[in-house]
Amino acid sequence: MFITFEGIEGTGKSTQIRMLVEHFKQRGQDAMVTLEPGGSRIGKELRRMLLHLEGRDITPETELFLYLADRAQHAAQVIRPALQSGKIVISDRYADSTVVYQGYGRGLDPRLLHQLNEVAVAGCWPHVTILLDLEPETGLNRAMARNLREGKAVEEGRFEAESLEFHKRVREGYLTWAALHQDRIEVVDATPGPDEVFESIRTVIHRAQQRH
Amino acid sequence: MFITFEGIEGTGKSTQIRMLVEHFKQRGQDAMVTLEPGGSRIGKELRRMLLHLEGRDITPETELFLYLADRAQHAAQVIRPALQSGKIVISDRYADSTVVYQGYGRGLDPRLLHQLNEVAVAGCWPHVTILLDLEPETGLNRAMARNLREGKAVEEGRFEAESLEFHKRVREGYLTWAALHQDRIEVVDATPGPDEVFESIRTVIHRAQQRH
Repeated sequence: MFITFEGIEGTGKSTQIRMLVEHFKQRGQDAMVTLEPGGSRIGKELRRMLLHLEGRDITPETELFLYLADRAQHAAQVIRPALQSGKIVISDRYADSTVVYQGYGRGLDPRLLHQLNEVAVAGCWPHVTILLDLEPETGLNRAMARNLREGKAVEEGRFEAESLEFHKRVREGYLTWAALHQDRIEVVDATPGPDEVFESIRTVIHRAQQRH
Repeated sequence: MFITFEGIEGTGKSTQIRMLVEHFKQRGQDAMVTLEPGGSRIGKELRRMLLHLEGRDITPETELFLYLADRAQHAAQVIRPALQSGKIVISDRYADSTVVYQGYGRGLDPRLLHQLNEVAVAGCWPHVTILLDLEPETGLNRAMARNLREGKAVEEGRFEAESLEFHKRVREGYLTWAALHQDRIEVVDATPGPDEVFESIRTVIHRAQQRH
């Protein structure tokens, strides 16, 4: 079973993924956690490049193709082999991030981006995608609070550098995209505390496992 | 004016490009030479990555997207600004290489690759493309002889590592693609010596300049 997590920064993806892995572990199920960009060996180099070049002289199209290169390698060399060996795979971001950030966020055509994703994932689509939904203001506040806790500058994160307007477009884009893919994308309200959010996720995953 | 050179290895692209630059220079015209992969700053890093990963565990789709990232950056940051400043731009390989090598060579869909190129070049298509055509056996012999002259192992070049069968598919792919784009791609026989080949190129460029 292949599960992906999506959502703007500050929605608690990492926390919920940790809780889900623990949940599977308690039930004797082996779950592998991976992420984008940077899930494969080549992807790590691309991630370093993307984070380094963010906001520099890189064009939106160059950025897009680097994300797709990372995804193609990730799907073929990491996710597919793990699924074939019977593992549950959980990815922190995947194909939907490209449609939403580069499409709804930066103005490229979402349908074209979906076609490009088809090439990149080569059939390796998630069985279920958890979209953690949150008001961008709340997400940004949480992300900044995390930076403070981790001893970083308040605005150090790469997404914190974007305007609130951008995050609003991304949040709305996620909801639009989820409405177009209701069979796969499950919207979970990320406003409550972690335990309450996890209860919703547990229900969604349970339902998906029964379908699967 | 934007001119690209295409063709399998050993067709003498570099030699002909040097002769063409000299030709423009004698006529008081400023020509900038660039190449793919590696024409932009980011592209240099991608070129290093591509050459390093060639034949390793990189998937054809990952390779494709890295070439497209290189091209998007190259078109937007190098070629377009040079053209806008009035320069003649000559590129050693460009969009057609992807269609021919990844498509006809490696089996991806040439029409899809053309669509991906449309995203990458964002309207920045060559006014004329010189396809240097040669029997793959002759091209390989020339490339190996060059390696010897340069003190490399005979089979050191990245393309020399591919099978003759692959180069035959690529050569035929180039001719098919040229037939589909006769308005832009000019096939020049690269079998004769450099001076004779250059005469043909000079005629083609002269005609293209009059059209342009």
